[in-house]
Amino acid sequence: MPSDSPSGIYRGDDALATLLTEAGTGRSPAEIRALVAGVLAAPEGEDPAAWLELVGEGLPTGLAGQLQALKAAMAAEAPPPATGPAERLADLRAALKRRDLDGFIVPRGDEHQGEYVPPRAQRLAWLTGFTGSAGNAVVTAARAAIFVDGRYTLQVQGEVPADLYEYKHLVEDPLTDWIVAALPDGGRFGFDPWLHTIGWVEKTRATLERSGILLVPCEDNPLDSVWRGQPPAPLAPVVPQDEAFAGDGSADKRGRLAEDLGRKGIAAAVLTQPDSIAWLLNIRGADVPCTPLPLSFAILSADASVDLFLDGRKLAPRTRAHLGNQVRVRGVEEFGPALDALARGSARVLADPSCTSAWIVDRLQLAGARVERDGDPCALPKACKNEAELAGTRAAHVRDGAALVRFLHWFSQEAPKGGLTELAVVEKLLACRRESDRFRGVSFETIAGAGPNGAIVHYRVTPETDRRLEPGSLFLLDSGAQYLDGTTDVTRTLAVGEPDPALAAEMRDRFTRVLKGHIALSTARFPRGTTGSQLDVLARLPLWQAGLDYDHGTGHGVGSFLSVHEGPQRISKVGNTVALQPGMILSDEPGYYKTGAYGIRIENLIVVRPLDAGEAAAAERPMLGFEPLTLVPIDRTLIERPLLTAEEAAWLDAYHAHVRDSLAPLVDGEVGRWLAAATAPL
Amino acid sequence: MPSDSPSGIYRGDDALATLLTEAGTGRSPAEIRALVAGVLAAPEGEDPAAWLELVGEGLPTGLAGQLQALKAAMAAEAPPPATGPAERLADLRAALKRRDLDGFIVPRGDEHQGEYVPPRAQRLAWLTGFTGSAGNAVVTAARAAIFVDGRYTLQVQGEVPADLYEYKHLVEDPLTDWIVAALPDGGRFGFDPWLHTIGWVEKTRATLERSGILLVPCEDNPLDSVWRGQPPAPLAPVVPQDEAFAGDGSADKRGRLAEDLGRKGIAAAVLTQPDSIAWLLNIRGADVPCTPLPLSFAILSADASVDLFLDGRKLAPRTRAHLGNQVRVRGVEEFGPALDALARGSARVLADPSCTSAWIVDRLQLAGARVERDGDPCALPKACKNEAELAGTRAAHVRDGAALVRFLHWFSQEAPKGGLTELAVVEKLLACRRESDRFRGVSFETIAGAGPNGAIVHYRVTPETDRRLEPGSLFLLDSGAQYLDGTTDVTRTLAVGEPDPALAAEMRDRFTRVLKGHIALSTARFPRGTTGSQLDVLARLPLWQAGLDYDHGTGHGVGSFLSVHEGPQRISKVGNTVALQPGMILSDEPGYYKTGAYGIRIENLIVVRPLDAGEAAAAERPMLGFEPLTLVPIDRTLIERPLLTAEEAAWLDAYHAHVRDSLAPLVDGEVGRWLAAATAPL
Repeated sequence: MPSDSPSGIYRGDDALATLLTEAGTGRSPAEIRALVAGVLAAPEGEDPAAWLELVGEGLPTGLAGQLQALKAAMAAEAPPPATGPAERLADLRAALKRRDLDGFIVPRGDEHQGEYVPPRAQRLAWLTGFTGSAGNAVVTAARAAIFVDGRYTLQVQGEVPADLYEYKHLVEDPLTDWIVAALPDGGRFGFDPWLHTIGWVEKTRATLERSGILLVPCEDNPLDSVWRGQPPAPLAPVVPQDEAFAGDGSADKRGRLAEDLGRKGIAAAVLTQPDSIAWLLNIRGADVPCTPLPLSFAILSADASVDLFLDGRKLAPRTRAHLGNQVRVRGVEEFGPALDALARGSARVLADPSCTSAWIVDRLQLAGARVERDGDPCALPKACKNEAELAGTRAAHVRDGAALVRFLHWFSQEAPKGGLTELAVVEKLLACRRESDRFRGVSFETIAGAGPNGAIVHYRVTPETDRRLEPGSLFLLDSGAQYLDGTTDVTRTLAVGEPDPALAAEMRDRFTRVLKGHIALSTARFPRGTTGSQLDVLARLPLWQAGLDYDHGTGHGVGSFLSVHEGPQRISKVGNTVALQPGMILSDEPGYYKTGAYGIRIENLIVVRPLDAGEAAAAERPMLGFEPLTLVPIDRTLIERPLLTAEEAAWLDAYHAHVRDSLAPLVDGEVGRWLAAATAPL
Repeated sequence: MPSDSPSGIYRGDDALATLLTEAGTGRSPAEIRALVAGVLAAPEGEDPAAWLELVGEGLPTGLAGQLQALKAAMAAEAPPPATGPAERLADLRAALKRRDLDGFIVPRGDEHQGEYVPPRAQRLAWLTGFTGSAGNAVVTAARAAIFVDGRYTLQVQGEVPADLYEYKHLVEDPLTDWIVAALPDGGRFGFDPWLHTIGWVEKTRATLERSGILLVPCEDNPLDSVWRGQPPAPLAPVVPQDEAFAGDGSADKRGRLAEDLGRKGIAAAVLTQPDSIAWLLNIRGADVPCTPLPLSFAILSADASVDLFLDGRKLAPRTRAHLGNQVRVRGVEEFGPALDALARGSARVLADPSCTSAWIVDRLQLAGARVERDGDPCALPKACKNEAELAGTRAAHVRDGAALVRFLHWFSQEAPKGGLTELAVVEKLLACRRESDRFRGVSFETIAGAGPNGAIVHYRVTPETDRRLEPGSLFLLDSGAQYLDGTTDVTRTLAVGEPDPALAAEMRDRFTRVLKGHIALSTARFPRGTTGSQLDVLARLPLWQAGLDYDHGTGHGVGSFLSVHEGPQRISKVGNTVALQPGMILSDEPGYYKTGAYGIRIENLIVVRPLDAGEAAAAERPMLGFEPLTLVPIDRTLIERPLLTAEEAAWLDAYHAHVRDSLAPLVDGEVGRWLAAATAPL
């Protein structure tokens, strides 16, 4: 199906009915409309026609055109008349009153506690207008507050009316303190048990009950009952992930995990993380932006079979065949009864308290299960990439590096002229990446921060904030891509022309300290058993020695054509007990941010590897190290050479030589010459 | 009272009675005998006559002499006929049977969970013969096992009969697995609730109950019931700690902590850690070796008063006056009723679950208290030394440094001759330290490891293991002292003559890597909020890069004339959430150990300090750093100069200059010349 098939004009449901019958799809126009509503609730993705597979394989061109036309027509339909935040808040309060609740919490997350939530679950944004990626609103009859973290203190003031909501700090102002102060003694505080983990509920309940407040789970979400026009759940095709990329059959993965469950006397594991399910079943989806997730739940039984709970309309016939008869596809409405059945005979059921909703754990316990709380069993094997995944990731990084080099060559020509803006850069970078046919979209919204915008760690450019790249300034560009064979994430900080002489010395000093930290982490060797938390300081020390630091983690796990942020490993100040293991992919991204002036970050993805034979021979213990995956030049003009040790300079030269050797075959002419110069020894 | 008063011959109880009456002590010979039994159960200490204060102040010489003679006579009395381990085990089993118990655990610790336990509490050693500092014995009707960690796998085989006890690993072999396997279903497993923390009991109970085993607290310890001749509790004088050294009055300390309790709505805190009580009340004791602890319990109330539970015979009149009327001295038998009274009205009572025995928490809860589990409130303020404590510590380190320099000069003369042994060295070092009148004993048993003994991390020399220091070998010397104004702990690794040419290159490489790690930690700057766990890697990285490591922590907290191992801060691979704060004293002691060959460790005590004004001016954030306290030359002959960076070499030269400047006024002649040479620039 060509992705650019013109959709034309929709000719009506009768005409569609005829085409559907002729093609033998067995679908009615009403069914198709419901399907399209779900498709429109999912991101469009790189191939806007991909969803047609859900109607049938190899559809006649006429039918395909009409389906696309219907989708375009429905997308253009006027949304229900928008209500204002005051009316929405009043409606919610009325709904709470009907339920005899004195208060209610509206979190940002959905049932999967994920980073991206579909439009249907964007309750916090609908209610308050707040569009940040973390926060809670709390509503009582007389008061309401919105809790956001330091990243969003400015944004919340622009988006959320101060006359309706008090602004509170997510970390510094304890939510429970506010609730206790706002509710009468003996008050009933409601929550949607699907949207909060069992861990959160138990902690919050203990605190509230000490103050005489009852925490009350709601059978249905009171907000949903007043949200007119709430979008349906997204319906994006769930497709098989080629075993050539996955490197391991789903049956083998299931078998290994099931064996482990059996050894521990556990009957089944409940899986609530769509990326775990995607990994386990070798499937990918497109229900949310930037991450190829099929929103779903699953139960992995000790007999290695799986019950997969999702809307069956998301599965193309080829995907059903791929899943095989050991994976039972069931509707989400069957999830509860399946948990009941599972619990029979006091079965021991594994659930991860950090990501399993209270609804699930409560249902299991009520049905008599003995819930064993432990980490998601997919998390660790998913994190440790196999050879095929690593080969795919390396190939993806060569491709991504070539795209970046084409971009950087263009940037080196255009930026000094002073005409570029952040949005133009984002567009050009996307175009460079789109040249690959394995490209499946960005792995997160590109962070393109010109000058002072670079100092806003979670900055996302909008037409309103779009800023010109001024010559003499620094430009921070953090971006990543999803390819069929791997996920990338790279940050480079670029001089726009010649650095401003007034700031050049400071910027070079900071850039070089960030680079020293980057190199220190990248070159570290460490014994097996070492965690990312233990290594974090290596990336910070060159900044610390100058009285500087950065307020974000140093490294996050990265998936294989999956989430660009995955656990369980992590490199950060925050303690983490997961040992680094061969095959784990992490980012290495120290930074420095000067508010109102500029931001610097240098990020490569790195993979944990055992030492090679020569290195290992000299070692007394089993040691591990890292290997850089990212292949993109680091701006040499920003380096203060005397600050680097001889070893650090040698590392950079060797890295640049590796970048050059890897990418030279993919670029030529002007771009090749630029690459050679950009990777020349210091 | 002169400490060397000759004791002469004991002339009998009648004569003593007369002397006691004449001196107006109001004590009978029987009371004195009970007191002396307790004195003999405490370590003798630097002043064997110190205990006489407990009979009365300014005793007539005749009475003092007879008291010392009585002590000598009682010390020489034949102990009760020793029973063998088989008989002891059989006796214990009979006691368990009488109590209807199927098993029982004998831990190494006492009621205070401390590092040193008095003879009365050395139950594990009495039962099994095992003298290590950590371990558990578990006994059932048919089986028995002893659990020790990796340090003691060899020692346990020498001390504990294999035909009576299975040898198990404290960490790798879960205790509960063994119990479950050894006990019948529904079995009753006993424990002494005084000897286990509430944390241990709850975790163990949950695990055992899953397997149908009941964990039963014993009202009295069944082992004590069969231990004929069990020593009494130690009775060593509790004396005031001069406020000039403490820097802060007890009333002020109590007031600050009480205010904090009040703010949190907590009625009182239960204190079970003798060093916390010593710090809070500005008292010191001598109940256990190496640490000036008064074994005791205390309750700190929100009104800033304290109930101190200990044997009143330990208090000299001057100590009662020092404590004042806000500190109520009560017998240990009143502790339980006091907890009951405290709990009235559902009072909130603070207890540290990591060090509070199950007996205490159970008693509180049974009496209706709401137990708030949180850290010992004295731990953090005790760790952050005030100016007076820091001044005392600095003075103690100058004194200790001078003693070490005198020792090292002697060592440099004697060692190359090949005649020294570990015991001779320990004796000489003690003699050097004894020259100070503020010396109050060693702060831990000196570790003096010649050649291969240096590779045994927790080695303690005995006449049986005493080894000659062979020329060409390395000698590891880890020792510390208690002075009235501070506690020291220092490790130096010394070449015995010229290093063995066959090993010299390797030894120098390892020594220099350990030194690089030591310097990296010592010179680190870090933002407020940083924990010791975050910094640990700095001390290890130079070893890691060569495939090497060491299997112990990098740094422990150190008290002020208190425990040489104190929390809550710590520098180690193990996660720790306590931020380093100004005034905290820590050790910096990376090492390298080659089994069967040699051990290397370089240890200074360092103190956390804010940056000075000049350093702080350039910093964007509130940063902290360290300052070395230890003043002892580091053996320059073992340094491989090319492995050091210019900055590292400069650090060592500056450190040595500081050592020289600080100690030169205290040493002269030959020793002064040796110091000048030992601290010359590289």
